[in-house]
Amino acid sequence: MEKISVAVLGATGTVGQKFISLLENHPFFEVTEVVASSRSAGKKYKDAVSWKQDRFIPENVADLIVKTTEDTLDSRILFSGMDAEVAGPAEEEYARRGHFVISNSKNHRMDKDVPIIIPEVNPEHFELIKVQPYKGAIITNSNCSTMFLAMVLAPLHKAFGVEKVFVSTMQAISGAGYPGVPSMDILGNVIPFIGGEEPKMECEAQKILADLKDGELVPAPFVVSAHCNRVAVFDGHTESVSVLFKNKPTVEQVKETLRNFKGIPQEKQLPFAPKQPILVFEEENRPQPARDVWKENGMAACVGRIRECSIFDIKMTVMGHNTVRGAAGAAILNAETLVALGYLN
Amino acid sequence: MEKISVAVLGATGTVGQKFISLLENHPFFEVTEVVASSRSAGKKYKDAVSWKQDRFIPENVADLIVKTTEDTLDSRILFSGMDAEVAGPAEEEYARRGHFVISNSKNHRMDKDVPIIIPEVNPEHFELIKVQPYKGAIITNSNCSTMFLAMVLAPLHKAFGVEKVFVSTMQAISGAGYPGVPSMDILGNVIPFIGGEEPKMECEAQKILADLKDGELVPAPFVVSAHCNRVAVFDGHTESVSVLFKNKPTVEQVKETLRNFKGIPQEKQLPFAPKQPILVFEEENRPQPARDVWKENGMAACVGRIRECSIFDIKMTVMGHNTVRGAAGAAILNAETLVALGYLN
Amino acid sequence: MEKISVAVLGATGTVGQKFISLLENHPFFEVTEVVASSRSAGKKYKDAVSWKQDRFIPENVADLIVKTTEDTLDSRILFSGMDAEVAGPAEEEYARRGHFVISNSKNHRMDKDVPIIIPEVNPEHFELIKVQPYKGAIITNSNCSTMFLAMVLAPLHKAFGVEKVFVSTMQAISGAGYPGVPSMDILGNVIPFIGGEEPKMECEAQKILADLKDGELVPAPFVVSAHCNRVAVFDGHTESVSVLFKNKPTVEQVKETLRNFKGIPQEKQLPFAPKQPILVFEEENRPQPARDVWKENGMAACVGRIRECSIFDIKMTVMGHNTVRGAAGAAILNAETLVALGYLN
Amino acid sequence: MEKISVAVLGATGTVGQKFISLLENHPFFEVTEVVASSRSAGKKYKDAVSWKQDRFIPENVADLIVKTTEDTLDSRILFSGMDAEVAGPAEEEYARRGHFVISNSKNHRMDKDVPIIIPEVNPEHFELIKVQPYKGAIITNSNCSTMFLAMVLAPLHKAFGVEKVFVSTMQAISGAGYPGVPSMDILGNVIPFIGGEEPKMECEAQKILADLKDGELVPAPFVVSAHCNRVAVFDGHTESVSVLFKNKPTVEQVKETLRNFKGIPQEKQLPFAPKQPILVFEEENRPQPARDVWKENGMAACVGRIRECSIFDIKMTVMGHNTVRGAAGAAILNAETLVALGYLN
Repeated sequence: MEKISVAVLGATGTVGQKFISLLENHPFFEVTEVVASSRSAGKKYKDAVSWKQDRFIPENVADLIVKTTEDTLDSRILFSGMDAEVAGPAEEEYARRGHFVISNSKNHRMDKDVPIIIPEVNPEHFELIKVQPYKGAIITNSNCSTMFLAMVLAPLHKAFGVEKVFVSTMQAISGAGYPGVPSMDILGNVIPFIGGEEPKMECEAQKILADLKDGELVPAPFVVSAHCNRVAVFDGHTESVSVLFKNKPTVEQVKETLRNFKGIPQEKQLPFAPKQPILVFEEENRPQPARDVWKENGMAACVGRIRECSIFDIKMTVMGHNTVRGAAGAAILNAETLVALGYLN
Repeated sequence: MEKISVAVLGATGTVGQKFISLLENHPFFEVTEVVASSRSAGKKYKDAVSWKQDRFIPENVADLIVKTTEDTLDSRILFSGMDAEVAGPAEEEYARRGHFVISNSKNHRMDKDVPIIIPEVNPEHFELIKVQPYKGAIITNSNCSTMFLAMVLAPLHKAFGVEKVFVSTMQAISGAGYPGVPSMDILGNVIPFIGGEEPKMECEAQKILADLKDGELVPAPFVVSAHCNRVAVFDGHTESVSVLFKNKPTVEQVKETLRNFKGIPQEKQLPFAPKQPILVFEEENRPQPARDVWKENGMAACVGRIRECSIFDIKMTVMGHNTVRGAAGAAILNAETLVALGYLN
Repeated sequence: MEKISVAVLGATGTVGQKFISLLENHPFFEVTEVVASSRSAGKKYKDAVSWKQDRFIPENVADLIVKTTEDTLDSRILFSGMDAEVAGPAEEEYARRGHFVISNSKNHRMDKDVPIIIPEVNPEHFELIKVQPYKGAIITNSNCSTMFLAMVLAPLHKAFGVEKVFVSTMQAISGAGYPGVPSMDILGNVIPFIGGEEPKMECEAQKILADLKDGELVPAPFVVSAHCNRVAVFDGHTESVSVLFKNKPTVEQVKETLRNFKGIPQEKQLPFAPKQPILVFEEENRPQPARDVWKENGMAACVGRIRECSIFDIKMTVMGHNTVRGAAGAAILNAETLVALGYLN
Repeated sequence: MEKISVAVLGATGTVGQKFISLLENHPFFEVTEVVASSRSAGKKYKDAVSWKQDRFIPENVADLIVKTTEDTLDSRILFSGMDAEVAGPAEEEYARRGHFVISNSKNHRMDKDVPIIIPEVNPEHFELIKVQPYKGAIITNSNCSTMFLAMVLAPLHKAFGVEKVFVSTMQAISGAGYPGVPSMDILGNVIPFIGGEEPKMECEAQKILADLKDGELVPAPFVVSAHCNRVAVFDGHTESVSVLFKNKPTVEQVKETLRNFKGIPQEKQLPFAPKQPILVFEEENRPQPARDVWKENGMAACVGRIRECSIFDIKMTVMGHNTVRGAAGAAILNAETLVALGYLN
């Protein structure tokens, strides 16, 4: 298969760098265009970027000349890690011109006709594209904290009906980008607040688990209450979760349901698909971000401490890699699924 | 006033050291006896202890000869930081001999006739002493995580009736003592489990807020569901809390109720009494352990982010110093109150 | 004694906040004026500042109206925590107008006629003021890393003649101010570089230990080679130091010389004077920043592991509080000494 | 090529686990025997070990029955991660029985007839085996801190003659094994002492760079002075190094010499050989442990900040992965080289 040319929007930012790093040697996609602000325009990528990834800049990207949103792009698929300040109209304009914008930005997530996709959960929401007023399309992934909650709630909701969810997060610093959280604020500390995070966590999962009826999404009718905290962890968001169900399952039923969860990415063995999208831990003190964040190459939701809750039915700990499955990796899996389902033909 | 001689049990351990450090120059009490295991017996305290406190060993304690539980003690008040493995029968034996054992150990906390005291909350529970079958008495303080939850729930329960409480903790490493948590387990990590902690948090607050009827405690009839996590913080437990009330208060009512909370320690201006037992923060990102743990000399419960909860009524962040108000400082305030109320006469 | 009114320059910055926090209830000085950039001008201090200190804003300062460098100041003593970008000409102008500028900024440190003062070491350098072309004067303290090295070298140089010094630092994040070091750069990491730090460490100590001859400083003739590293420590710079002497001392002689070191601040019992300016530790693993940084209220140099060096004569570990004795506290002690020596009369 | 069966000694310990994890799918070797203390004897490996590695236990090892030093082993190559308390006589006994003991333990490192091998540096030292009084042999790798220093000094010594070396380390917690360093000792702290580390650093490099004459090693005649510090880093030892040479090189010559350094592992393209054994960084703030420790799969020495020293000739920062190239990975590369050079035939 010939590789599909892709562009990365916001290519010098934290998410943009992650896209470029994760897409190195990707079997479907090849980064051939990088777009950033006018400040970087005309420079070689390696000169424009303040590279913060663990691996070196991929050779084929290092010498690409940075384009701006003014320039016409050749790639049909655009991975967007644009800042929320500019992503709104820019992504729309690209979609209008016929590009498929696979976006990690929050701007269009709650638009009526823009799906928040988790390919194992709601691939049928790709159909919304057809309702979009664009020649191309905008497809988003969820907020990094929502991702792991939604992955875990999805099979449970289907089996037992989720009614209420308490979630208290302990989120990694990489979620705030670079320079992000000052070290004086987080070293040996907890910050019990992350701007804008709780509202996202309280509504995105319902949209992901929505029913698609007559071209419209009917949100899943459960309620989420979120407490969001920042902790001194590099990568990996950990979440304490309590769930009330319509039909109370046993602890064993929950484990089995999560372990058996699979979807299109697994069937089609997509490159970024985790073999096991949800890993269930039996150890009493797992999952842990520093130990488990790279399980399944950072693409799994890790779940442990599944037990009875004295107020709701079940409580557990959920953890996942916030910048891989929770951001750039999620978008890449979305693009892989889009291709695999033939939406690009 | 002449100082009252006190002994410290488990004097070489983490809690014992904290007792000794906090009691330096105390206006009521003077440490004149130190008790540890037979391994340390007969040595000078400074030679027996592996001192880990920030201040130097108080001069009057450094040269005390370490006694064992075999020895007769002269002090009436004993501060116990004994290990749970030995505290059970040892504390009873001391009480039998006529000592007032002010204990930080968990062993007797849930005994029917042993009160868990927070002097601002339930000083009337001291009366239980009279039911105890000892010449002396055993008085405990709560678990370090329960302390701040119970302090905050107390005035709210009185005013609005607490029914259900979700709490997810982020607890400091000092709570595990020394050597405690290996650094390889917690640096840049979260451990979503603390042995025995959740059961304590789910029952102690109800006992503290119990009604004392005919010499028996009738636990407050609310339910607590706890998730306990360890984070890379030195001192200070942070808790995300959601509360359902019988009579739903407004956010402003909650703040006012917490701010106005006072008790006997404040009235009698006891040495370890915080002026303001509950500090209410208005900043959206406070309290934080690294910033606020020493407010009121580590004796306050710090509360912030008081807001509406989408499932229960109110949610908030609670934080306090786990080894001061949550342990040794709590026991000292208990002893001060015991003296102030005349129980020693 | 009536308190002396003082102003704080750069009052909203990290060093300025530290000045205000440390000067609360100071027996000599009272902060009556605060100066910041025009952005803050006219606001109450509490509204202009993003306060990051552990204690609350002192009440007498909270409501002061922020002035700018345009405004005339009434205070004779000005504590300067101005940014290096503006401190140069601004401090000169204040000195010209007759103020005594006690500066923590680096701008004038290496000026021929401006002393870098450590009151225990070179109080005679205050005489340089008389050579300055100002009605007032500029007095500086050293860089935070130099401070502890210079304090330790001073008595050793006097006794044994320092010839060569290797120093490798492990510096705290608070040295970089706020927001300073991004957490993604330092959590679980070491940064082997601090901009501009090594050159300062390689020349300031020689100036502090200079001979004052005919109104000119003749730098001490030793050579320093510095490696500066940033580590994940909040407060406290740690330094591995190897020293070659003209006359090789024994380890015991070094310890005794350091322990006996005293100066004018101790004689005059100045408020910010440590009783013991240099604390010598015998434990094999001390000093440590997290354990020892607050010894002597953060005003001491802590020294340990004094032993023979296989290349030079002696090696040791030196540690101290970089924002107290290494910055704001140093300036305050300089001002106290200035007053005590009668330079203000 | 058929895989060579190997055993891991001390298989349940930190180094033993690392061996097992790194040897998963190794092209030369297959772990078929695991040896631990009698406490674990007879159990399945997965039941005996408290597994702390990021990946799961390799399937082919999980069910192996743990043997003890009493048992006869079938493998010729034994990887030893035994505790220093038992490694001494046990490793000798294995060598006597004909095994090739590839040891990471310190016990025999300084034995006259036991080489400390870095295959790129001193593969000719393998010849010492022939002098050993064993049917088999003992081969060691250096201490984890020495490794990176020796790798960097090796080509420089050959080219310019090393005379004196100052090194101050900032070492990772993983170097202390598990449970190792208590979190209360290192979180936000520096410990300026590591038991036994400085003496090792001051003599091992000279042995590695020794001339082999008539079956005896003549140590390289340079002097090392080491300061060893522990910092809050998970993996990766960082070292500030100053070097005096016989023939002073320029900074450029040093960089070129390090970049061109290669040896047998690179020629023979051994599985664990880094392509580039020494990576030279041009950025002013690199290498950093958290960023660079996995470069070349943790098998490279990373060097940066190469610049002139005001006392010696050249100073620089050296960094490498202490448990990979500095321990288990080093031993594996030693075994690969042993096989490639035909010593097993």
